Amino acid sequence: MQVRISEIEIYPEYFNEYITAAMNVGATSVREEPGVIAIFPMIQQRDSCQVRILEIYADMDAYRHHITTAHFNAYKQGTLHMVKSLDLVDMTPMNAEAMDEIFSKMKKE
Amino acid sequence: MQVRISEIEIYPEYFNEYITAAMNVGATSVREEPGVIAIFPMIQQRDSCQVRILEIYADMDAYRHHITTAHFNAYKQGTLHMVKSLDLVDMTPMNAEAMDEIFSKMKKE
Repeated sequence: MQVRISEIEIYPEYFNEYITAAMNVGATSVREEPGVIAIFPMIQQRDSCQVRILEIYADMDAYRHHITTAHFNAYKQGTLHMVKSLDLVDMTPMNAEAMDEIFSKMKKE
Repeated sequence: MQVRISEIEIYPEYFNEYITAAMNVGATSVREEPGVIAIFPMIQQRDSCQVRILEIYADMDAYRHHITTAHFNAYKQGTLHMVKSLDLVDMTPMNAEAMDEIFSKMKKE
């Protein structure tokens, strides 16, 4: 399991356009890539230019595959001019074994 | 739905003790409180003193209840001296309606 929080600052004039692109690439990745476990994009309430994306991949191979996909590269190239800064912060879950319990209430009934 | 990323810096000498306390209070909260949807604690790989906790509550009442519980207050008081800084960053999901899809692969089989 590979977990990351991407910390992204966007230029305010591209807010709507960026949000649409980020939502779409996340949804497509989860739907089409078995190794993309979850992509959860969020916006800071106190500063809407500050985006945080929780990304969970099955393993490093799944991530390496993800960044070769057409949908990821269309997003990446299409949003480059909207992004002021980008910091990919790799994380270790405190309890990786409990992740299904941790997210058990998120499941679709 | 209330979503937050708690950004916590801990003193290195309390690393093990803090991680245990944070894991336990998260697990207890998800198990015992219907309105605590998910608590996902993580540690930065580049700086293990930097903790991030993704917290998802059903609504503001669920959060208000959470901070009155015995397990939360035991954690809070018991770890005060371990915490160098704390920033509770409220977030808006880009697509709140899609959260069950976003986390659908996390479910227990």
